[in-house]
Amino acid sequence: MKITIIGLGLIGGSLSISLREKGFCDRVTGIDQDPANLEKAISLGLVDGTAPFVEAIRGSDLIFLAIPVDATVDLLPEVLDLVGPGQVVADMGSVKGAIAAAADRHPNRGRFVSLHPMAGTEFSGPAAAVRDLFRDHTMVFCDSGKTDSDALELMKGMANLLEMRSIYLEAPEHDLHAAYVSHISHITSFALALTVLEKEKEEQRIFELASGGFESTVRLAKSSADMWVPIFRQNKTNVLDVLQEHIRQLNRMKEVLEKDDYPQFYNLIHQSNKISKILR
Amino acid sequence: MKITIIGLGLIGGSLSISLREKGFCDRVTGIDQDPANLEKAISLGLVDGTAPFVEAIRGSDLIFLAIPVDATVDLLPEVLDLVGPGQVVADMGSVKGAIAAAADRHPNRGRFVSLHPMAGTEFSGPAAAVRDLFRDHTMVFCDSGKTDSDALELMKGMANLLEMRSIYLEAPEHDLHAAYVSHISHITSFALALTVLEKEKEEQRIFELASGGFESTVRLAKSSADMWVPIFRQNKTNVLDVLQEHIRQLNRMKEVLEKDDYPQFYNLIHQSNKISKILR
Repeated sequence: MKITIIGLGLIGGSLSISLREKGFCDRVTGIDQDPANLEKAISLGLVDGTAPFVEAIRGSDLIFLAIPVDATVDLLPEVLDLVGPGQVVADMGSVKGAIAAAADRHPNRGRFVSLHPMAGTEFSGPAAAVRDLFRDHTMVFCDSGKTDSDALELMKGMANLLEMRSIYLEAPEHDLHAAYVSHISHITSFALALTVLEKEKEEQRIFELASGGFESTVRLAKSSADMWVPIFRQNKTNVLDVLQEHIRQLNRMKEVLEKDDYPQFYNLIHQSNKISKILR
Repeated sequence: MKITIIGLGLIGGSLSISLREKGFCDRVTGIDQDPANLEKAISLGLVDGTAPFVEAIRGSDLIFLAIPVDATVDLLPEVLDLVGPGQVVADMGSVKGAIAAAADRHPNRGRFVSLHPMAGTEFSGPAAAVRDLFRDHTMVFCDSGKTDSDALELMKGMANLLEMRSIYLEAPEHDLHAAYVSHISHITSFALALTVLEKEKEEQRIFELASGGFESTVRLAKSSADMWVPIFRQNKTNVLDVLQEHIRQLNRMKEVLEKDDYPQFYNLIHQSNKISKILR
């Protein structure tokens, strides 16, 4: 099988590493609008080479879009224009509503599989690509009823090969859950970094004192604006809804502390401890 | 050297493991007001045994208090009452103001070393104790000018043996920085867990979809209320100050998103990305 991956960052690069290692494909053609990224990906050996856009699409059995969600909405119709009945196109975006709308308007909708691998790190670009990024994580298939069964089976097989759990959601449901379990964490981390950078002028002290707890809550603040602003934009309604609730919870803790209502503070922490029953 | 450790949880238990392994002491006597904790610590081999409180203190060269900060404030004067010129007492608390005040009133202040190892996990109790919890972390010495030089040297040597970096702060300075780089992360995590538990009724979905990013921002929400409520209480002014700033930053992000001011959202994320220059 011949594959083209458009976007050679953390996701596209890691996908290429895994699919080549597992023998899922004979050749991976890489495309990236940033010449430096493309060169880096080739020099790191993430992909076999590059080709002009139309030629790459026409010559591939399977084409992945692993680019920011705004770019995916723009590019997906162009890619679908170029593919025929034997080809499959998949995106890897973190918000699905706008991508689903773009796909649904296209006559080749059946050739499209909308995927969201629930895996990532705070790093970006080809150098961030790693082996086994996807293993033991969840692959979300969105609106799979609109995908031709052969295309769906191909991607189910790929998820299995990557040792991922597959789940199936409609786009609106996906976007709601993603706001809760991914997007809000990033908002929180960005805001926490701004808080500490604003309040703590002694940067050396942060470095000396920061322990694992701080690092783990703030590490997502290293994430790329180019990836995340389009996500927040496309999932604005859900993100605002969850963000409002998060601010409400923080204000509740603030009031409890202001009032010295420590029994209630114990209650709040005991309630929040329930998260450990849900996470591993 | 004979040591007594009061409080056989994550910190006390981990300390005992490391000090015994490194040959810092001949015998560790463990004390815990919870009989189940004490029994667990002994059965796990974290300590050599137990003894009645007064006997343990009187028979030890070095006594650690590794208990919640409210209990430390209560118990420290009792322990200092019992020690003589050759003995050393150290606490491991996360807030220092109230502990410093309790110590400063005591005639044996010179025998006391106020320590805060900037290390921990979200787990608690004897079963949470681990090897190498402290290695490569920072040991904060508070108000070290008030400690007798022999006692201070003993604890500096211990920090070196544990392969920790030592830094020296006054209690108010410590409490301010701790609010920034530790306490606020816990508040955020507790609030994030409450947010998700409140909004996301489908717990199975959280489990299936939560990726590393969510887990790392929310893992501190598993932390013990018995440890953390006294910390927030004793560091109330600093915590409220940082919490207020954090809520302000979140509201700023919310307004930017509401107004669709994406250039400004890019700016905020780029600013927050600066945290990566400070953290490893």
